[in-house]
Amino acid sequence: MAGNIPVSPLAPESFPDLPVIEGVTFATAQAGVKYKGRTDVMLALLAPGTTMTGVFTRSSTRSANVLDCQDKIGSDSDAGAAIIVNSGNSNAFTGSAGEGSVAAICAAVAEATGLPAERVFTSSTGVIGERLPHDRITAKVAELVENQDAGNMADAARAIMTTDTFPKGATETATLDGVEVKIAGFAKGSGMIAPDMATMLCYIFTDTAISREVLQQCLWLDNASTFNCVTVDGDTSTSDTVLVAATGKADMEPITDFADPRVRVFRDALHAVMKDLAIQIARDGEGATKLIEVQVTGANANGPAHRVAMAIANSPLVKTAVAGEDPNWGRIVMAVGKAGERAERDRLTIWFGDILVAENGWVAPSYTEEAGAAYMKRDEIVIRVDLGLDNGTATVWSCDLTHGYISINADYRS
Amino acid sequence: MAGNIPVSPLAPESFPDLPVIEGVTFATAQAGVKYKGRTDVMLALLAPGTTMTGVFTRSSTRSANVLDCQDKIGSDSDAGAAIIVNSGNSNAFTGSAGEGSVAAICAAVAEATGLPAERVFTSSTGVIGERLPHDRITAKVAELVENQDAGNMADAARAIMTTDTFPKGATETATLDGVEVKIAGFAKGSGMIAPDMATMLCYIFTDTAISREVLQQCLWLDNASTFNCVTVDGDTSTSDTVLVAATGKADMEPITDFADPRVRVFRDALHAVMKDLAIQIARDGEGATKLIEVQVTGANANGPAHRVAMAIANSPLVKTAVAGEDPNWGRIVMAVGKAGERAERDRLTIWFGDILVAENGWVAPSYTEEAGAAYMKRDEIVIRVDLGLDNGTATVWSCDLTHGYISINADYRS
Repeated sequence: MAGNIPVSPLAPESFPDLPVIEGVTFATAQAGVKYKGRTDVMLALLAPGTTMTGVFTRSSTRSANVLDCQDKIGSDSDAGAAIIVNSGNSNAFTGSAGEGSVAAICAAVAEATGLPAERVFTSSTGVIGERLPHDRITAKVAELVENQDAGNMADAARAIMTTDTFPKGATETATLDGVEVKIAGFAKGSGMIAPDMATMLCYIFTDTAISREVLQQCLWLDNASTFNCVTVDGDTSTSDTVLVAATGKADMEPITDFADPRVRVFRDALHAVMKDLAIQIARDGEGATKLIEVQVTGANANGPAHRVAMAIANSPLVKTAVAGEDPNWGRIVMAVGKAGERAERDRLTIWFGDILVAENGWVAPSYTEEAGAAYMKRDEIVIRVDLGLDNGTATVWSCDLTHGYISINADYRS
Repeated sequence: MAGNIPVSPLAPESFPDLPVIEGVTFATAQAGVKYKGRTDVMLALLAPGTTMTGVFTRSSTRSANVLDCQDKIGSDSDAGAAIIVNSGNSNAFTGSAGEGSVAAICAAVAEATGLPAERVFTSSTGVIGERLPHDRITAKVAELVENQDAGNMADAARAIMTTDTFPKGATETATLDGVEVKIAGFAKGSGMIAPDMATMLCYIFTDTAISREVLQQCLWLDNASTFNCVTVDGDTSTSDTVLVAATGKADMEPITDFADPRVRVFRDALHAVMKDLAIQIARDGEGATKLIEVQVTGANANGPAHRVAMAIANSPLVKTAVAGEDPNWGRIVMAVGKAGERAERDRLTIWFGDILVAENGWVAPSYTEEAGAAYMKRDEIVIRVDLGLDNGTATVWSCDLTHGYISINADYRS
């Protein structure tokens, strides 16, 4: 499985140096949930006073873990918190056994740490519909608590990988009224990545002192323009989770009001981390050989712009054309047409990067097939579409659809 | 291109014997629009008194031909009619040149036949965004008129193929108050086949005497449960067209009221022809090795059932699992969850054919992986999902997603 898939050619050169975030420590273990010879569970422990926020898949068949996290995320606590994540089994569609597994894991972590079970957040990712052997995870909890280390974030990023071909990390700093705060996180995801996040898990940590209400609002807003703008295959996972934990250890007055001018500065950094991780997920799209950025402008509102961009980014015909380095812009016209949003042939303008391709309802006089074909040789393809209607805009990220995707997914489980 | 792709393993053993429909004749020619050494244009001529009806793509970037047909389809005429179709170039997104090409072709057919141009219906299928060399078609009109023959329907079916690997024909008879009427037609389509028909052209002919209003109503209704239930890749074409022509040559009182009891009998036969052609299109899905039928029951209405069925049928992860003969029913759960319709984990039941797979929110006790794996070896896979909510049902057809799809679409144009 994951071990047999070559690293994506679009992978970053190296994993970034992630800083220590005061108030959070990590450990990983080999629990053998499904994979052998690699870590497959990670535990993060968060200091008392940490603010926990999250966004989750909208799937109607979401996993027991997601349901449990959603129940817990809306309250404050002074007790600290834990995040425990396993790869290899998603614990989704496992009936009441799935809920039992979550409860057993939470109880084991609570017992080993002294935290209330309501402050233990779990995620599981992997195959759907197979009972989670949670005893293999609970058997490792003591070891995970014992081995906690503030410098282990990169190991944690590796433990949650499934078909990912590289671990995904990102970090930024922000200066809030002279106080530097740190934001760092990691994510996994490479298939079943779609509009509403899809099998994507992401954990972000910051030492910023910020209230739950304000942090949750930041997360909602920035999620809309980052993780919700990534698509690999249009499929939506049962398990998507983004958790953001703020330990409050930075020496600053807490942010408690969304109108606080520091929010804008903090959000710029949070958004940068989320966007970096989101694009890394597209770069690790199953079988990806090219990153596709779709920019739509001139829609009658941002929502329609997003739907047109997603129609292009999800189109198998557009994605196979990119895979074949074929500047087949007619397929972009097709995808605009099928989006179900207002579009007028004669107002549409299409570019590959800065190359004007089509305008006024037809191919641009200056466009040459040679220029288009040369552009398509790049690793990173930007498709720009202006609908010529109004000011709605959206940017989304995807990857090409290749033989590699078929190979990975035609034998994922068997 | 088409010539290099092996015939789909799901193709019918042979093309059916299509009957002569009194009042309609066909001819084909090699116009060299794009393809060499094969026919690429067909002209059908319809006797005076023929009723013409049609349904078309809902794409907002539909082709000039579709726009022209839509303008013409709503009126009656005693003048007869013509249908002229070319393959190799879709004449879509070709600006005002596209409209000029349609007008030139209609004018040429009108001049050669004596028909008014308003009774000439055109379709074009193939690459988007390249100017249609319509003079190559108009140069063949005299030959096409000269060679008309009532027995040429099979040749016409071949002339409209693009990436199709086999021609698609179907026929039925119906007995209306003791009078036997015939229905026969042909279709093309193998990629870009999606919810709202996609690059699919279909022409159906009958000698039934029936008014335009009643025939159009029959076509709308039966299209909803046939061509709009086929999906290959979720992409929607700019050119989809289904035309039904009724010559009225059968010795019968014309049907002029939808409440006429003969309508039910006629519709059964029309529906059978349309369903047969729709499934043949799924059988010729680009790269298909397995036909997938998705049956959804127990939805809260038929519309939601259709959307859930389409979410399953369009899911790349479901389609690659079928390609890999992997009974990965978890991906079906995922697809139900992403459909955006009401679904409850614990009410969901899933079968492969007659094999109960999952119920009560989990794998069924009787299910074995061996049984599922054996079922997936079949050429025709039936996925049944009951949502357990109410009486909404839908059935849709699709095919698996294979390396063949990538090969065909990564070099369609270059």
